[in-house]
Parts: sequence; structure tokens; C-alpha cells
Amino acid sequence: MELPSKLLENAVYEISQLPGIGKRTALRLALHLLRQPVEQTENLSLGINKLRKEIKYCEECHNISDVNVCQICCNPKRDKTVICVVEDVRDVMAIENTALFRGVYHVLGGKINPIEGIGPSQLKIKTLVDKIKEGNIDEIILALSSTMEGDTTNFYIYKQIKEFGVKTSTIARGVAIGDELEYTDEVTLGRSLLHRIPFEASLKCN
Amino acid sequence: MELPSKLLENAVYEISQLPGIGKRTALRLALHLLRQPVEQTENLSLGINKLRKEIKYCEECHNISDVNVCQICCNPKRDKTVICVVEDVRDVMAIENTALFRGVYHVLGGKINPIEGIGPSQLKIKTLVDKIKEGNIDEIILALSSTMEGDTTNFYIYKQIKEFGVKTSTIARGVAIGDELEYTDEVTLGRSLLHRIPFEASLKCN
Repeated sequence: MELPSKLLENAVYEISQLPGIGKRTALRLALHLLRQPVEQTENLSLGINKLRKEIKYCEECHNISDVNVCQICCNPKRDKTVICVVEDVRDVMAIENTALFRGVYHVLGGKINPIEGIGPSQLKIKTLVDKIKEGNIDEIILALSSTMEGDTTNFYIYKQIKEFGVKTSTIARGVAIGDELEYTDEVTLGRSLLHRIPFEASLKCN
Repeated sequence: MELPSKLLENAVYEISQLPGIGKRTALRLALHLLRQPVEQTENLSLGINKLRKEIKYCEECHNISDVNVCQICCNPKRDKTVICVVEDVRDVMAIENTALFRGVYHVLGGKINPIEGIGPSQLKIKTLVDKIKEGNIDEIILALSSTMEGDTTNFYIYKQIKEFGVKTSTIARGVAIGDELEYTDEVTLGRSLLHRIPFEASLKCN
């Protein structure tokens, strides 16, 4: 794709560095910006620059925050003895939306992924182990996605914290609410059967 | 979607102003930038800002260019008496890739689209009419996409230039090379039949 302008070529290149955006989409976005008022481009570039340079991470849970300690960790009503370990801020948002979790979070900032060169040292695993070492923790809930990377990370963390004897659980996997059994994949359905719960317990949910 | 940080919220809002990017994708892109070196965000914002502020449009054909008159209009080998009217720079690139057009272009910068509030005055139609008025033009090729907006724009231009008696053509519509007749929509196939060409002429193509 030969572009008639170096400026356009450079902008397209930079936009196409974003994940899931190819050269063609990048060109479409660049041409869109050219048709919009100059303020839109200014606001966009200012917004991402400020985000990248001024963002803070909560000292307690490593979640994205504007202040040193995030709202969840500051909240005296949250149970600090139960820690839910998640990958990133999107998972925190998803769990907060259920309104069923009253503990606090620990955001790892990713999953162990040797292919992309992400090892345990790049994740916030050490601070999690330190928290547990200090005591006052009743339960660790591992809530990573059930991919190979998620399972690897779960297992790595489990090995690190096993010796402290803290109750460690993982979120239940199974057939989603509203899903038909016949369309569920066999691994999920198998897990649902294997980890079946007493019927009375299922009535208490929600 | 409630985000834990104003900075993140603002960046996500600005990214989601781009066409085809919703809040969720914008959040994914913002989190991606946070995980990358700070230079990537700087280069991206600099790239789009420079593009928006320093880009030039060719004085002759209104195509995007780094200089006052673009390479195509400067080229003495191009036939200035044949003008191909297109919507934007992507169409110029597509036609240049065929290597079958030796004339010059006229980039309108869009199509007439009352729903989006784009009228003829926002497009570079007047300068096209002026060029024809000045004379020395043998043929105008209308090469807009065959949507309702494209057809409207074609017809508007045709009405404006009719009186000057310049030969006006439009690119052929029909079954694409390599396509099966049975899978072609009836309008396209109908046009292919209606505007059939002598067999000997079809041999000369390419």
C-alpha cells in the first residue's frame, strides 16, 4: 500500500500498531480524523498521552486508579481478608457488576505467557505472596480466565502460597445461566457434572 | 461501564469517538497502550497530531499530499485532458494499483449525503466545474461507488457539467472477474447484460 504522503504514512503506521487494527483500518481512521475538527485529534492525543503518563496504580491491589489507594481498597465496608486475584481492570469491573463480592482484589496485570515473553516476575505475584505472608488473609479466590495461560498462572500462584495454609479457591466453571446443555462444549459440561452442588445450595444463590 | 479512573475514562471516551470503535474496544486499546513503552503512545499522538495539522491537499486534484502539487499532477507523462472523479485518496490508490489509468484525478473529498449533512458545497465540485469551464478537458470519468450517495453525487456533477459538452463516462459495473454468475446479485448481472460489449473488445482488455 503506497500512500501519497509521508505524514499520512506515519500516522497510519502508528495507528496500525494498536492490537486488532490493520493498515486498512488505520487508513480509514486517519482519513476520518482529517475530516473532523482539529480539536478531536488534539483531544484524542492529549487523552492517551495523559493516561499513559499520569495514570496511577493502587498501592494495595495494583488496580488502575487516579489516587494512591483505590476506592475499593479505601472502602471500610470491604472485607480485606478475602482477596480475589484477577488479570486486569476489566475483570474487576465485571466482578463489581455482579454486586456479589464484598472482598478486595489483587490485579496481576496479565497472565504468565512465555510466547509473549511474560514471566511471573512481570506480574504482581510477589506482592500477593507478601500480603499472605503478613497474615490476616482468610481466603484467596483465583479468578483468571480458563485458558492455558490462566491455568498456568493459577497453578504458579497456588504453588507459591500453598505453604501458608490459606484457603484457596477458584471460581466455578460450568454451563452458563440460560444456556442449553446440548450446545455446551463437553469440557464445560463435564466440569459442571463433576463439581455439582447440593440442590439446596443452588437455591440460595442470588 | 464505570471505570475506576477519570484519566482512563477520558482516554476511552476519546478513542471511542473513532468510527467502528465502541467503548469496550476503546478500553482494550487504552489498556494495551498502558502495557507498552511510553514512546508508543507519544509516537501515536504525535503522528495523528502532525497529520491533522500539517497535511496538505494538492492544489490541482485535492488529493492528500506533502507538497502543494501532488506527484500525479506533477507528472508530465499523465494526460491532463482526462479527469477521473473519485471520492477520496483510497480510490486514487485503488485505481493507481490497476496501472491502467494514465489521466489525472479529481478528489471530491466525500459524497453528497444529506443524512450526514454533507451537501455539494462541502465537496470539491466547484473547482471541477471551473477546470472544465477553462477548456482543454476531453473526458470526465465518474468513478464513485455505486451507492445511493454515489449515484446522487454522479448525477449532481453530470447536471453541472452537461452544458460544456465534455464527454462524460462512468466506470463499468458488472460481474467481477472470477465470480460465478449464480452468486452475483440480479442488479449487477442485469447491468452486465444490458451493457454487454463486443467480444473482440473484451479480448483487448488488459
